[in-house]
Amino acid sequence: MEGLTSLGFQVGYEPDISQEAVEHSIHLYSGLIVSTRIKASESLLKDASLLRFIARAGSGMENIDVAYAKTKNIVCINSPEGNANSVGEHAIGLLLAFYHNIATSYLELQESKWLVQENRVHELEGRTVGIIGYGNTGKSFAKKLSSFDMEVMAFDKYLRNYSDEFAREASMDVLFERCEIISLHVPLTPETFKMVNADFLNRFKEKIKGAALDVYENEKFETHTTLEQQVFHELLHSRKVIVTPHVAGKSFESKKKIAEVLLRKIKEILNVKPLS
Amino acid sequence: MEGLTSLGFQVGYEPDISQEAVEHSIHLYSGLIVSTRIKASESLLKDASLLRFIARAGSGMENIDVAYAKTKNIVCINSPEGNANSVGEHAIGLLLAFYHNIATSYLELQESKWLVQENRVHELEGRTVGIIGYGNTGKSFAKKLSSFDMEVMAFDKYLRNYSDEFAREASMDVLFERCEIISLHVPLTPETFKMVNADFLNRFKEKIKGAALDVYENEKFETHTTLEQQVFHELLHSRKVIVTPHVAGKSFESKKKIAEVLLRKIKEILNVKPLS
Repeated sequence: MEGLTSLGFQVGYEPDISQEAVEHSIHLYSGLIVSTRIKASESLLKDASLLRFIARAGSGMENIDVAYAKTKNIVCINSPEGNANSVGEHAIGLLLAFYHNIATSYLELQESKWLVQENRVHELEGRTVGIIGYGNTGKSFAKKLSSFDMEVMAFDKYLRNYSDEFAREASMDVLFERCEIISLHVPLTPETFKMVNADFLNRFKEKIKGAALDVYENEKFETHTTLEQQVFHELLHSRKVIVTPHVAGKSFESKKKIAEVLLRKIKEILNVKPLS
Repeated sequence: MEGLTSLGFQVGYEPDISQEAVEHSIHLYSGLIVSTRIKASESLLKDASLLRFIARAGSGMENIDVAYAKTKNIVCINSPEGNANSVGEHAIGLLLAFYHNIATSYLELQESKWLVQENRVHELEGRTVGIIGYGNTGKSFAKKLSSFDMEVMAFDKYLRNYSDEFAREASMDVLFERCEIISLHVPLTPETFKMVNADFLNRFKEKIKGAALDVYENEKFETHTTLEQQVFHELLHSRKVIVTPHVAGKSFESKKKIAEVLLRKIKEILNVKPLS
């Protein structure tokens, strides 16, 4: 906010504003900074005659109609660099929690169960990991894996020649054949929606031992259908699944890093066309 | 067992044997391989006239009277190399579980609590870690930390000039002054018994945010005194403490690695004085 003010903006901070209130006042604004709650849809943007940019404090752009914004000359930016380290750390944490039974044995101890044989751990060393989506968070995860003596390969549909010191470029066929661990680092788009379906899972040579999840299709628990409730209840009570409440990228440090990234990108936009 | 048989030993595998039964038959054996349950004390060893070696499948030698064994020309060996990788991984897992609220938010979700703000994560990046005890497991932990962009220092009372690519040698005074994270990798000896007392903790500039524990003073829960029960109950129900049931080194992989290390060391003993 200080940075924007020093650029000449008047800044309003309204973390609890409703979608309707944004629609009613959008014509007054030159810029919009959102997380995931406000939908920057065509109906919101149609009256945004002054709007120069929409900035997403985070990575996913699924709540922003980027194509429509473009037709109105509104620049859309995000800040995946800002929480990549946090997400990379969280993915390693989930992986180790799964292989070393950290969350489940902690839960058992809460229930006064001291179980050693049942919690013998599996080392990560020597195993093969496939990363799907080799952008900021995928790379951060690969970098952290580099000290664990594992084989790391990555598939990214939109990149070419992206092998680096942390991961080797590979096709999905190679991942299906070779990987025991898969980490997903792709945005939600029409193309990735329900990508991990039965057909996808059945193509892996290794069968599924479990899952570690931080993000869910419907995170508004109060709106869960009976089926969604049943599925989530089943995941929660399976000792093969670890869950965290969509916090991988929400570190205290990333809040600041995201603000810095967005401020830099907004300055770049203004350098092209200064604020009138 | 196959390796020992091929060396000419007759091998008995008695994982559930009682202390008394070992005492009654110890005079028949040339070698004893133990975990932590059997106490190789003076009373057990006094009749061990044929005994050539005591091998600990694991690291800690606190259940073996090494000094007394030496007077009887019995060689004592352990296998800290065998589970060092597993322990190093587990320590990283506990550290990330703590800083990223992985075990506690998993527990909350079991209780139907979806709490994002309360579970904002803290990144490891940029923080300073102090390792106390720079042997096999301390080094394994340091190596794995090397991909997390942290500052890593190590204190070891019994080593000199041990700075390496993963950790910088430092005094305890420097650790007290600089470290936000301390990882303990020392054996239980009279010298380390209750080392982490109030006086020790008060010397740190940073005050305690929490603890991640895998090993406990009394792991036989059925023998806990009322006070021990109270203390453990308090630890379990504090969201500042994560606990696992002494499994850090008990990986499936380390079982095999420990056997290989012990077999190699037993061969070395026999090379000095062959089996008569």
